[in-house]
Amino acid sequence: MVDVMSRPQPDLTIAEAPDARPSAAGQMSLSVFGATGSIGTSTLDLVDRAPDRYRLVAVTAQSSVDKLIEIALKFRPERAVIADDAHYATLADALAGTGIEAASGRAALIEAATMPADMVMAGITGAAGLEPALRAVQGGGRIGLANKECLVCAGSLFMAEVARAGARVLPVDSEHNAVFQVFDRENVGRIEKVILTASGGPFRTWTRAEMEQAKPSQALKHPNWSMGAKITIDSATLMNKGLEIIEAFHLFPLEAHQFEALIHPQSAIHGLVQYEDGSLLAQLGAPDMRTPIAHCLSWPERGTAPSARLDLAALATLTFEKPDFDRFPAFALALAALKRGEGAPTVLNAANEIAVHAFLAERIGFLDIAGTVEAALDAAEKRGLLKEPGSLEAALELDSETRALTRHIMAA
Amino acid sequence: MVDVMSRPQPDLTIAEAPDARPSAAGQMSLSVFGATGSIGTSTLDLVDRAPDRYRLVAVTAQSSVDKLIEIALKFRPERAVIADDAHYATLADALAGTGIEAASGRAALIEAATMPADMVMAGITGAAGLEPALRAVQGGGRIGLANKECLVCAGSLFMAEVARAGARVLPVDSEHNAVFQVFDRENVGRIEKVILTASGGPFRTWTRAEMEQAKPSQALKHPNWSMGAKITIDSATLMNKGLEIIEAFHLFPLEAHQFEALIHPQSAIHGLVQYEDGSLLAQLGAPDMRTPIAHCLSWPERGTAPSARLDLAALATLTFEKPDFDRFPAFALALAALKRGEGAPTVLNAANEIAVHAFLAERIGFLDIAGTVEAALDAAEKRGLLKEPGSLEAALELDSETRALTRHIMAA
Repeated sequence: MVDVMSRPQPDLTIAEAPDARPSAAGQMSLSVFGATGSIGTSTLDLVDRAPDRYRLVAVTAQSSVDKLIEIALKFRPERAVIADDAHYATLADALAGTGIEAASGRAALIEAATMPADMVMAGITGAAGLEPALRAVQGGGRIGLANKECLVCAGSLFMAEVARAGARVLPVDSEHNAVFQVFDRENVGRIEKVILTASGGPFRTWTRAEMEQAKPSQALKHPNWSMGAKITIDSATLMNKGLEIIEAFHLFPLEAHQFEALIHPQSAIHGLVQYEDGSLLAQLGAPDMRTPIAHCLSWPERGTAPSARLDLAALATLTFEKPDFDRFPAFALALAALKRGEGAPTVLNAANEIAVHAFLAERIGFLDIAGTVEAALDAAEKRGLLKEPGSLEAALELDSETRALTRHIMAA
Repeated sequence: MVDVMSRPQPDLTIAEAPDARPSAAGQMSLSVFGATGSIGTSTLDLVDRAPDRYRLVAVTAQSSVDKLIEIALKFRPERAVIADDAHYATLADALAGTGIEAASGRAALIEAATMPADMVMAGITGAAGLEPALRAVQGGGRIGLANKECLVCAGSLFMAEVARAGARVLPVDSEHNAVFQVFDRENVGRIEKVILTASGGPFRTWTRAEMEQAKPSQALKHPNWSMGAKITIDSATLMNKGLEIIEAFHLFPLEAHQFEALIHPQSAIHGLVQYEDGSLLAQLGAPDMRTPIAHCLSWPERGTAPSARLDLAALATLTFEKPDFDRFPAFALALAALKRGEGAPTVLNAANEIAVHAFLAERIGFLDIAGTVEAALDAAEKRGLLKEPGSLEAALELDSETRALTRHIMAA
């Protein structure tokens, strides 16, 4: 999570005006939020392979200032923003005389989202990415959305802003991008369902009794860093797929019951759309985010990406199973929260985050994650907290209240 | 094969004029060629489920007069044509006083293809279907193409007519329809390849030595009727997939080397298109021709079909392997004929048909089918027969010459 900085925003005035930059015909102006993260790195790799196609507007990072400087010097954006003010001097010194504006702080981050760009890649994860993405949407342009919280915590609000501003949200997440690629917007009435695939996680074949005893080390296959651990546990509980179904509900105009998950351990097929003529259209691909990102950068045309090509003959076998609600109660809770609507998904997401961190700290068991989320949803319902958040502030307030409530439940 | 009848065409004048029929707004006028066959039956099943959507123009059959009468009385087309003149009296008697024109003979069949219709379903198999399909195309409308010979024997000619007339060919065959559903015509330059799946046939796992000894009874799983036997053997040799790749080459504007086959015994995925961004888009479905037919009838909108929905979790496993050129030399010959171009595919197809019938009659062995086709291609090349047929007559003449040549080779 990014802390909201209260320090005043540095002076953004610089020598070279933005309109002095080259803007060849057909060039796309692009801002990359979270430029040093996974989505940002993949996006910039694609930009680097076709530098004439893009003109960088803003690039931002939370605290990886050295990487941000490297990016700025290479891609020459109009502005580079580091959210953590402690790194401002380092950034400003490195960019002095380059004509690239240096800025820092939460306000600068959000202000950068209002800079005109043909496309904004919203690659900041967590609640910190919500406001910049919302500001970018309000500009009415195209936004590549890789932030879960925008849709899980504030989906109705976010999509209402998208509609109001006439913006276009292009889903970057591999499952949602897959669905987007085969979702016929001209014939939505003929779509029966959308299916997101899930690897099934490390406990796919475990019994409930075994899962009760599961340790964090067993749930984490690659515990590289904190956010990676959170997502890995969400994959183990299937909560991740539940949250993705909530996102899909906001991205695609269908009813809640028309979204399904399918366990598919090989993760070759990322998403499917079933039509009333019996056709099931699917997108497949190797696990490389440059494929969905290239799709978003070029849509409605097609781009290129250096991702490995999926070789079905080499893979040889693809398998599929239904998700088991009994062994994966977190998934069932997410579907129930989607059907309950209003504030329920916000509460689900916040309670889950607290419960997952408690599991990682070995304070609760693996199946207690779902138990805790369920208890938090019940408590929130009793306290009348599940109504639709009417504003971004209300959604963030509900998120915050739920975190306190969940800690309280676990302490009891 | 249908014999071309030389008897004069019966008088087509009838009491009720075509324009007296209802033509509600949004109704599609439709002719069904080969109405009593597999494609025709599936098409009419869909029409029967949405009768207000369609107005039947012509329905035709080769010799199944009782079934054609039943169809005519139920669907009330403007005209019913039986290709075999011997059944004319039966048809005319049954339709007397109904206002439905009765006609018979080859000329009447071809003439029916010139009747204005929003769509013509070209469901006549074999060389007999070539001329009606070509005439339908010349009308400049929409044609649902289920006839292999149009593209294998006279692909360049046929597609040149399509372009000249501004007609739209919609592929009905499940593999080609699958590709059509995920082939982005707006971004053809970004397509890397098209993949058609193949079940692999009954000898998928046999060794070459075992295949040398294979009997027709082993190659035929469901020897229901003559045309079924031919296609079943073509599936066993993989020649069928080779012919389908030749068809695909004419339907989709890519180079010959961009078409591939993939062995996929479960036949759940029918076709795939690989893009330069690493995306592989696929159409899946249960084996029910009503799905691709419904797609063609409604394109670019989406229709409905009562086909069973594909349940991937119930199927559980999909497998894939590369086609083995050594054990399936017929497939390699087809790809080579496509690359050779001009008259080679026509010769390949005609020689194969003769060789398959010789195998079914136990006059040659299973692997001799490919050997015979190869010998016929070599002989045709030596005789200077492989040049591009300049007309439909020239293509049919080459087909006929090849048949004689192939019989001669086998007799030697």
